[in-house]
Amino acid sequence: MLSHRSQIEVRYAETDMMGVVYHGSYLPWLEVARTAMLASEGLPYRQLEDAGYYLPVIEVSMRYQRPARYADIITIEAVIREKPGIRLRIDYRLYRGEELIAEGHTVHVFIDKSHRPLRPPAAFVALMQKHFA
Amino acid sequence: MLSHRSQIEVRYAETDMMGVVYHGSYLPWLEVARTAMLASEGLPYRQLEDAGYYLPVIEVSMRYQRPARYADIITIEAVIREKPGIRLRIDYRLYRGEELIAEGHTVHVFIDKSHRPLRPPAAFVALMQKHFA
Amino acid sequence: MLSHRSQIEVRYAETDMMGVVYHGSYLPWLEVARTAMLASEGLPYRQLEDAGYYLPVIEVSMRYQRPARYADIITIEAVIREKPGIRLRIDYRLYRGEELIAEGHTVHVFIDKSHRPLRPPAAFVALMQKHFA
Amino acid sequence: MLSHRSQIEVRYAETDMMGVVYHGSYLPWLEVARTAMLASEGLPYRQLEDAGYYLPVIEVSMRYQRPARYADIITIEAVIREKPGIRLRIDYRLYRGEELIAEGHTVHVFIDKSHRPLRPPAAFVALMQKHFA
Repeated sequence: MLSHRSQIEVRYAETDMMGVVYHGSYLPWLEVARTAMLASEGLPYRQLEDAGYYLPVIEVSMRYQRPARYADIITIEAVIREKPGIRLRIDYRLYRGEELIAEGHTVHVFIDKSHRPLRPPAAFVALMQKHFA
Repeated sequence: MLSHRSQIEVRYAETDMMGVVYHGSYLPWLEVARTAMLASEGLPYRQLEDAGYYLPVIEVSMRYQRPARYADIITIEAVIREKPGIRLRIDYRLYRGEELIAEGHTVHVFIDKSHRPLRPPAAFVALMQKHFA
Repeated sequence: MLSHRSQIEVRYAETDMMGVVYHGSYLPWLEVARTAMLASEGLPYRQLEDAGYYLPVIEVSMRYQRPARYADIITIEAVIREKPGIRLRIDYRLYRGEELIAEGHTVHVFIDKSHRPLRPPAAFVALMQKHFA
Repeated sequence: MLSHRSQIEVRYAETDMMGVVYHGSYLPWLEVARTAMLASEGLPYRQLEDAGYYLPVIEVSMRYQRPARYADIITIEAVIREKPGIRLRIDYRLYRGEELIAEGHTVHVFIDKSHRPLRPPAAFVALMQKHFA
């Protein structure tokens, strides 16, 4: 298992007229969490793209339990539970302090610049082998 | 069953550096589709909020099959398949011409301004009874 | 002079917790207006990029006179007042019905894929000569 | 004079298909910078709204000198140069390391929940008097 915790502070731009965070604003937070996880393992996502590997989201889901509010500090826990094959699945839990406010997951595949599926790069494979031996 | 088709044109702002539409940009399109569906049935969402009824997204999922691109015309089909009880589920299919590019769903509950669950307003109940007699 | 009018309908995602449209949400509307203007003149922006010409915003300003609200129909008038040289300036006026709600402008330059300044493409020059003879 | 420096890391969601940051994505960064400035002076913006004071943007301008890129660390310097009267003007400079990449300003007025102009709250007036004695 590989997991990582990141924090963001809710921006005004991320709220909507319901007075709380717009449900779509959580998706960039998941991105912050998974790229921080990769970076903390020595594999910044920018390096992957520079090397010709793209890792788009092919599936996303979110369940919202409590509204997030402007200026909240949100902790996002990203977890890879299973050794990725062709697909990489990442699960997320979002907390305000100790309170679970939302959960979700994303699924990714590696593709090249022309959007063709691609084997994961060696550095990524090595990283997964280290954590899922 | 209740269904409706809407169209949007992809904005530049909705793309990302992968050269295609950012996965989070689809969520406002689902919103366009479901509010157009309600409006076409004589129940504009703005009226619901003016009457004190809010219908937040408590669950969303998307699966992306083909990338959407800048300036594409995307047709979004919104469907309510089952008579809603406390929860309202809406399914979506997104097309570029005849090509299915993405699918998803949202789940909603009615709440009041203080975020407390609320029975659906009479106009909404009547509309659902008409379509799910 | 070259001018064009477009319409958008305000999306829920474009509002913020002040209950009105987030000030940053107007910028994609300006983009809708100027690309519709180019398209109406037979020069879709996508074609420009396909031919290697990019037209980024190097300057933007907005003045907000009245708040725009969810579900409002906003008319955006885009105007090129002066024949563009190296720089292209576009002015905008935003209306809700007859009511002027905001004004702004953008300035653009043509660049290539490597972000180097570029002479405008022939089709663009011809279009400007037609309107600013 | 009152000034403050904040940092953000560019999110993937903030880029567009030109491969760099979408020009509209800078506006939430200005917001991050000015709210951090207020918070560092003991006046969190959330407290202002809780007390019934809203501080919308009534004018914004940006000039973009160098593109910002995904994963860049951007320093945003916010400065109040002149003692605010009815209007509050904030100037911004954005840096990547030592490199100035963009400049801008916003203008704000205090309003109440009904969007009527309002005198600034006492805590804000006191803060300005402290810095512009």
